[in-house]
Amino acid sequence: MNKPIDQSAFKTPTVTTGPLPASRKVYTHPVDAPDLSVPHRAIALHPSANEPDVQVYDTSGPYSDQDVEIDVEKGLPRPRTAWILERGGFEEYEGREMTLEDNGGAKGRHLAREFPIKNKPLRGLPESKNTQYEYANAGIITKEMIYVAERENLGRQQAVPGAQARVDAGESFGADIPAFVTPEFVRSEIARGRAIIPANINHPEVEPQIIGRNFLVKINANIGNSAVASSVEEEVDKMVWATRWGADNVMDLSTGRNIHNTREWIIRNASVPIGTVPIYQALEKVNGVAEDLTWEIFRDTLIEQAEQGVDYFTIHAGVRLAYIHLTAHRVTGIVSRGGSIMAKWCLSHHKESFLYTHFEDICDIMRTYDVSFSLGDGLRPGSIADANDRAQFAELETLGELTQIAWRKGCQVMVEGPGHVPMHKIKANMDKQLKTCGEAPFYTLGPLTTDIAPGYDHITSGIGAAMIGWFGTSMLCYVTPKEHLGLPDRDDVKVGVITYKLAAHAADLAKGHPAAQLRDDALSRARFEFRWEDQFNISLDPETAKDYHDQTMPKEAHKVAHFCSMCGPKFCSMKITQDVRDYADTLSDNEKASLEAVAEEGMAGMSDKFKEMGGQIYLDEAVVEAGE
Amino acid sequence: MNKPIDQSAFKTPTVTTGPLPASRKVYTHPVDAPDLSVPHRAIALHPSANEPDVQVYDTSGPYSDQDVEIDVEKGLPRPRTAWILERGGFEEYEGREMTLEDNGGAKGRHLAREFPIKNKPLRGLPESKNTQYEYANAGIITKEMIYVAERENLGRQQAVPGAQARVDAGESFGADIPAFVTPEFVRSEIARGRAIIPANINHPEVEPQIIGRNFLVKINANIGNSAVASSVEEEVDKMVWATRWGADNVMDLSTGRNIHNTREWIIRNASVPIGTVPIYQALEKVNGVAEDLTWEIFRDTLIEQAEQGVDYFTIHAGVRLAYIHLTAHRVTGIVSRGGSIMAKWCLSHHKESFLYTHFEDICDIMRTYDVSFSLGDGLRPGSIADANDRAQFAELETLGELTQIAWRKGCQVMVEGPGHVPMHKIKANMDKQLKTCGEAPFYTLGPLTTDIAPGYDHITSGIGAAMIGWFGTSMLCYVTPKEHLGLPDRDDVKVGVITYKLAAHAADLAKGHPAAQLRDDALSRARFEFRWEDQFNISLDPETAKDYHDQTMPKEAHKVAHFCSMCGPKFCSMKITQDVRDYADTLSDNEKASLEAVAEEGMAGMSDKFKEMGGQIYLDEAVVEAGE
Repeated sequence: MNKPIDQSAFKTPTVTTGPLPASRKVYTHPVDAPDLSVPHRAIALHPSANEPDVQVYDTSGPYSDQDVEIDVEKGLPRPRTAWILERGGFEEYEGREMTLEDNGGAKGRHLAREFPIKNKPLRGLPESKNTQYEYANAGIITKEMIYVAERENLGRQQAVPGAQARVDAGESFGADIPAFVTPEFVRSEIARGRAIIPANINHPEVEPQIIGRNFLVKINANIGNSAVASSVEEEVDKMVWATRWGADNVMDLSTGRNIHNTREWIIRNASVPIGTVPIYQALEKVNGVAEDLTWEIFRDTLIEQAEQGVDYFTIHAGVRLAYIHLTAHRVTGIVSRGGSIMAKWCLSHHKESFLYTHFEDICDIMRTYDVSFSLGDGLRPGSIADANDRAQFAELETLGELTQIAWRKGCQVMVEGPGHVPMHKIKANMDKQLKTCGEAPFYTLGPLTTDIAPGYDHITSGIGAAMIGWFGTSMLCYVTPKEHLGLPDRDDVKVGVITYKLAAHAADLAKGHPAAQLRDDALSRARFEFRWEDQFNISLDPETAKDYHDQTMPKEAHKVAHFCSMCGPKFCSMKITQDVRDYADTLSDNEKASLEAVAEEGMAGMSDKFKEMGGQIYLDEAVVEAGE
Repeated sequence: MNKPIDQSAFKTPTVTTGPLPASRKVYTHPVDAPDLSVPHRAIALHPSANEPDVQVYDTSGPYSDQDVEIDVEKGLPRPRTAWILERGGFEEYEGREMTLEDNGGAKGRHLAREFPIKNKPLRGLPESKNTQYEYANAGIITKEMIYVAERENLGRQQAVPGAQARVDAGESFGADIPAFVTPEFVRSEIARGRAIIPANINHPEVEPQIIGRNFLVKINANIGNSAVASSVEEEVDKMVWATRWGADNVMDLSTGRNIHNTREWIIRNASVPIGTVPIYQALEKVNGVAEDLTWEIFRDTLIEQAEQGVDYFTIHAGVRLAYIHLTAHRVTGIVSRGGSIMAKWCLSHHKESFLYTHFEDICDIMRTYDVSFSLGDGLRPGSIADANDRAQFAELETLGELTQIAWRKGCQVMVEGPGHVPMHKIKANMDKQLKTCGEAPFYTLGPLTTDIAPGYDHITSGIGAAMIGWFGTSMLCYVTPKEHLGLPDRDDVKVGVITYKLAAHAADLAKGHPAAQLRDDALSRARFEFRWEDQFNISLDPETAKDYHDQTMPKEAHKVAHFCSMCGPKFCSMKITQDVRDYADTLSDNEKASLEAVAEEGMAGMSDKFKEMGGQIYLDEAVVEAGE
């Protein structure tokens, strides 16, 4: 199905580089491992602000570093290889032989160019600790753990003032958010399965990050070519573009041909964790005929992708034969692609899914490379009508069982969640997942809170995402405006990322993450003081904010003017507040108290009138008639 | 400040007319008043659906009626005049003389053209019942009440099947949503102040609607020219455009010159209620100098606007002198324009606000024309940092007192709410408003759940709006992408309206409105059955949905193809569900039970393994080490 690719026409993917407006990349070096360089973004403010830079969490990798030269043909530096080798227990080996099927049989002018550099893969030795989960349970703090602690603290060396009070003022529904993140806290959260660091040993380009309920809420962007559209170049560009705007990690959901080569270009250039759904590629290897899938083909695909460095695999092992008929009377049946592939296989063979029967074998492979599980929700609801039904929750219970097995086998695990869920049924999802899956991180798609707004499903789902993020979801899978309608282009990817970034931040605020509100406060001060450029630069999308402003007030002078287009120059509500401040300064405490006493009295007076009328909340006919 | 207007260049405002795709206007006639024609929109589906039209709530007025010829120079028909006159107690009179100040002193080529037709205003006689509130409390069901009951039921003559079960399955936080809306229920809700029908007797063009916690959640769009931008033509177009996409009502927030003439064009062509903030115009009459405002100027402005037919006034009477200093240490002070005007006035004179001291006089005027109160939240928080602070809640308590007074004086009342509020503080707002204001309808702006996303504040606030709508807010004031940055253009208005429409619908679903889910189900069935055109047409924005689809799959054939761009033609998750259905049909109940029993056993087996390990939720070091 793919269009022929003219090799001579294959261009080096072009990606967007350079800092965001007024920003520069800064690195801090953790006390516990000063050799590590943990990246943050520092946003400079106008001198009149008299405030330090606003330092924010930065997912954009070396691409936004003012001092780095990017060469997509070479891929990113691989600093983490040294960390892995120094802890021992790993070996380099030749790796699996690439086959024609890895690229869906594409050859000649249909084959996308290979990534120019080939690295030998690493694997964990069976008798050694291979995964962050195993290290954590052995009481060992890895460099990855130190790195993510520093990153969560945004490089701060101590808690922000009032941090505990901020945590206490939030509502975290029983989470255990610390005022300051220490490496030991990271270790303990990973050890109990409540957080993961998705970081394949063969993805040493990654800047480690932590996903868990007691850390900042993360977001994911899906990219990937398909049989009907796009190319390697576009997908690499989208990956970098998504991380530029805040995607914490990226799933490559490519289908069709050239999956292997596309993925290699992506991973070698990705500073964020990359996830995949291996069954998609396995299906291509059997020409799209689900019933021809076998455990051997799937197993081989897992190893292929693990050697490339995929950081987490979605495994739909919860789609059991016995649950399939539960979806028969749904409005929208099975909407998960992986779920429906497995359902089709189970039905054709009338057998239990090989993902389920070989689950321990899958664990062994994933442990070897420290690939994290993302236990797929193949039976998630695809419509409001199907939310929280028996099929969905039966699968979730199985995912809970599988979580326990994966932990026993030493693997890191997160669990995927729905989908389409009306607001009043969202919390039940979260509560059930926490209980059933032993607090393993929940990773949800939205959920969409209504079905009636295709074209706006980033918003219908952004509502659900903010809420479930607040309730305890650790990572939110973005939805773009094209959801249900088509493949997202570059603009859609950006809108999806920004929408989910703001939803995740809204969740962080509500949960009481100690430093989350600092950015809101910095932006609001800029807004109040008419530091227009600062307002744009602190925002999630400075380019759009500035563009929208300039559409009404294009002149440069207006960006320093103490008024805005809403009220015009003659009158401004914000300006008046300065008068209020001046006034308040003139009042003594006694004067303030006496003013307020008068107000109280005024209200009491009205209250009296009300009482005279008999104190009824709702006036009945008689009273009104009498009043006429 | 306004640009000169060349009278010869003044064009008749052009507005968008004609039905939405696959839609036609249908009218039903209530049993209790068959002379009324209540509009709905019927969306026709593809014959293969074998389903009746999807009938939806319709705010778009005669503009989308396939059989109506629109003439903006004449305004809309005025059917409600007859209803008002037939109940008696009203008189036609000459009305106030227009002054130069009504248009901010604009004359000659600065003056916008007057609306060509002049109607004499009506007013209520003091000894008669004037307002819907008074009729309701007298036990009288007006035609407006019958109309809105029919409209809320979408023309159904009885409850949908399972309506009570749907209500029971929702979570309405103590609301009292009926399975079917009767005129008597409408009357009782209005009588107890829990709902309003904003419908000035001088706006007989209006299609009445009800705003209250036990009815469908409504949304509002703000339009209005300003001293620095736009024109009469643009604002009339925006008003019609906003209602086309679902705005239940519109606020004209014009500032600068020509306010009177702009408003007349808008009201004469508005089938939805129009709200204003009269203090804005009063301020223009004193050249923008807040301290020069007087009760007399304000009173005259109220009468001017009431005679024109404004349906509700925002009155910031809760901004009391004693509360002003409470805002001094806020991050963003007073951000409400009306609030800051009154604060400035109070400070300049060091006197209680004339809105507060003359509140009963204001009630008398508003009762005379049945203008509803929208008690303004002049001290609402303008940032996350200021949410739920003492200034905000002190004002809210005063608004509760004023609600009681307005009711006593026979007026309809709703109460405005914030603003910027993080998710975990939203419910406290709703609960406090319900308690303090005797369940008078709450009308909130968003709230925005974070400050960091200018350019996306329709979304940051859409999250808060959906939540507070669920919790009990009756009307949501939209926010456009340009919020904080500039004045919304036509496209922004549409995006704001659709965003709020989906938020309101998400709230209706969660509350358990008995028929809300029908539209989701119809759309999801269309999606599942690949009826692409039906999916677009049932959606809130068919044009955008179709456009997004066509960007990836432009061919006509693809709109009937049983696949989509996400998975391509070879494989489709939705198609597989048909196999599942066929399979389920082959299974006997016994077979189903035995399949599920096997699954249970499988899980039990895993459970046993887990128990063997000591039943710990979190594996400790020893266990993992032992496993190696």
